[in-house]
Amino acid sequence: MLLKNCRFLLTQNEKRDILENVDVLIEGSIIKKIGKDLGKHGKNDTDCSRKIVMPGLVNTHTHLGMHSLRGLCDDAELHDWLDIIVKEEKKLSDKQILENTEAGLREAVRFGTTCMYDSYRLAEERARLFERLGMRGCLSSTIREKKDIAASEKFVKSMLARKSSLIKPVVAAHAIFSTDEAILKEVIALSEKYGVRRRLHVGETRKERFDVQQKTGKLPIEYLDSIGFLDEKALLVHAIWITKGEIRLMAKTRTKVSHNPISNMKLASGGVMPLVEMMQEGVTVGLGTDSVVSNNNLDLFEELKVTPLLHKQHRWDPKVITPQDVLDMATINGAKCLGFDDVGSIEVGKNADIITIDLAPHLLPATTKNIVSHIVYSANGNDVCDSVIDGKMVMKDRIIR
Amino acid sequence: MLLKNCRFLLTQNEKRDILENVDVLIEGSIIKKIGKDLGKHGKNDTDCSRKIVMPGLVNTHTHLGMHSLRGLCDDAELHDWLDIIVKEEKKLSDKQILENTEAGLREAVRFGTTCMYDSYRLAEERARLFERLGMRGCLSSTIREKKDIAASEKFVKSMLARKSSLIKPVVAAHAIFSTDEAILKEVIALSEKYGVRRRLHVGETRKERFDVQQKTGKLPIEYLDSIGFLDEKALLVHAIWITKGEIRLMAKTRTKVSHNPISNMKLASGGVMPLVEMMQEGVTVGLGTDSVVSNNNLDLFEELKVTPLLHKQHRWDPKVITPQDVLDMATINGAKCLGFDDVGSIEVGKNADIITIDLAPHLLPATTKNIVSHIVYSANGNDVCDSVIDGKMVMKDRIIR
Repeated sequence: MLLKNCRFLLTQNEKRDILENVDVLIEGSIIKKIGKDLGKHGKNDTDCSRKIVMPGLVNTHTHLGMHSLRGLCDDAELHDWLDIIVKEEKKLSDKQILENTEAGLREAVRFGTTCMYDSYRLAEERARLFERLGMRGCLSSTIREKKDIAASEKFVKSMLARKSSLIKPVVAAHAIFSTDEAILKEVIALSEKYGVRRRLHVGETRKERFDVQQKTGKLPIEYLDSIGFLDEKALLVHAIWITKGEIRLMAKTRTKVSHNPISNMKLASGGVMPLVEMMQEGVTVGLGTDSVVSNNNLDLFEELKVTPLLHKQHRWDPKVITPQDVLDMATINGAKCLGFDDVGSIEVGKNADIITIDLAPHLLPATTKNIVSHIVYSANGNDVCDSVIDGKMVMKDRIIR
Repeated sequence: MLLKNCRFLLTQNEKRDILENVDVLIEGSIIKKIGKDLGKHGKNDTDCSRKIVMPGLVNTHTHLGMHSLRGLCDDAELHDWLDIIVKEEKKLSDKQILENTEAGLREAVRFGTTCMYDSYRLAEERARLFERLGMRGCLSSTIREKKDIAASEKFVKSMLARKSSLIKPVVAAHAIFSTDEAILKEVIALSEKYGVRRRLHVGETRKERFDVQQKTGKLPIEYLDSIGFLDEKALLVHAIWITKGEIRLMAKTRTKVSHNPISNMKLASGGVMPLVEMMQEGVTVGLGTDSVVSNNNLDLFEELKVTPLLHKQHRWDPKVITPQDVLDMATINGAKCLGFDDVGSIEVGKNADIITIDLAPHLLPATTKNIVSHIVYSANGNDVCDSVIDGKMVMKDRIIR
């Protein structure tokens, strides 16, 4: 497959090269060559002479199973919101959850996501939906109590046995406020045994912070460190109510973070996630939409814009974050969060996870100097034209196969 | 013209009725009838059976003349940013400014705006571009010094003489930090003489607040009140650094406000515009994108989403603003800000300024209960299909005439 005459190619390689008018040759699932005139334009090729070509976006936190609950509850604080939403979730049949997952996957593809972490019930069945559509990602079924451990281990074993090129299983504890220490330790043990990511919601509200301190005498991240949760396999979701000392612990242990600014703002979780401090300490941060009930869509272009807006606003300083910083979070750093080392940049030898974006009038004038700015501040998900995941064309001319 | 079988009709009337499966009959520039089965489906009619039909959006603050400077400067504080941008603006030829205005108008229409306030040089020529495309709006040429007064008066007189149904002239002083008291008084006098809106940038930075206090001994809004600037014809842009006492003065004088959250966040203007306090005091607030250099597009759907996110986040309270509140700002209240009393809602006898939105998968499931939420939190500008302004179809199936 050839992406022909890419008007702008955002490589997201180490030098963040932006190339003009080059071809990208894909063989199987791999990027084989990048350069000028790599072959004649055949019928399986895509003319990109009026397009931006860039790595597909990586969504580090979703719950696709909730997709049919969009717009159900907009103006409630997290714990009130949970009361309402959990009741509605209990009414969801298995069939509805799988329909929701499929609808969510299609929405994500439509808006340029090529890799995503999804956590909900029915992990095995959801993994098949990912594979059927051709989406790359991490999957888990959430662990809240003892009885969930065996199901999670079964899923991890079965996924690893299938050696899927698209799917990585994850061991996911629910949240620090809802999961006992014994369970957290079993989660750590499972993650170590199988060499897979372990995930936890943490630091989403101020209340949680006080509760953990009262119960353990430690700050949440100190506590997680003390029980051995933190290391490069750990992915923490939200991480808003976190001190500088805790951020240094996260950096030291190479713990990963999923930042979900729209969900946090909409639920008024309070404070502001200390992203700037995390960047300063070198913590790897990816972006997440969270579910459509607290966002209310799966358009990472919105996270790309709202992330710098939030942090510039919060710090009264427009210099704290650049368009390139946030683009990294949504691509190469997001991929690192999820453990996909061959994803998130367009480089020879890497997996071909690539999207193209129409150079619509609202992305003009376009030059190599402003094109990253346009992706971050001017584009929206509907601007995405084509999506290649693992070398396969999953969406062509806005039509999902 | 008939909008046939509108799946959801957001009237934005006093009761905020949402109607299902109704027709809207338009005769000339006026909405003639709303109801079931108002006629057969003819070739000039639009099938809206899979669409949301709602009032067009009103953008209360833009500078279209700067359109070609998109993405020029993303990470600078307002006064540094002005230094860079003003230099670039000086290089813009008249021809470029008019091309920019046309590109901006087309972008605004594409994203569902049917009425906008635009301030820049060449007001007369820009007004013709508005009329040629069929955009409704307010126009002004900015007054900074004595010599600008005569040009502004000439423009106001000529526009009023033309009795345009689309365009209202405005007398626009630049900013409280750049316009002398004598000039402000002439602006007031002109606005009173011709019965047109008067506009001022105010309260954008903390520095400005201190400067005004030092120079006048008064807080900015108190000062404006003392010289007679405030009344129902006054439109203040930004209004971030404003106290509760000043808000009460604005409410008492029925002064209007243009809120530009994305521009303010991107420029890190600091603080947070006291929108919640303004709502509590009953101040009429509209939304604005500002120019594409500080946004960086003209998509009011993004303001619709970012406005509640910002204020929920800032107040640590998700209840301070509802989707309906912010939809009102972008429609009926924005129209009031600009002095268009017959615009901003879909009611019999009012001007037909109407957009339709495709019920795309990311706006499902859709019911009368969640449709306003979907418009605010899930839609983007590219979802807009058709646009009717003053009874004329300006965009049909995403193609601008």
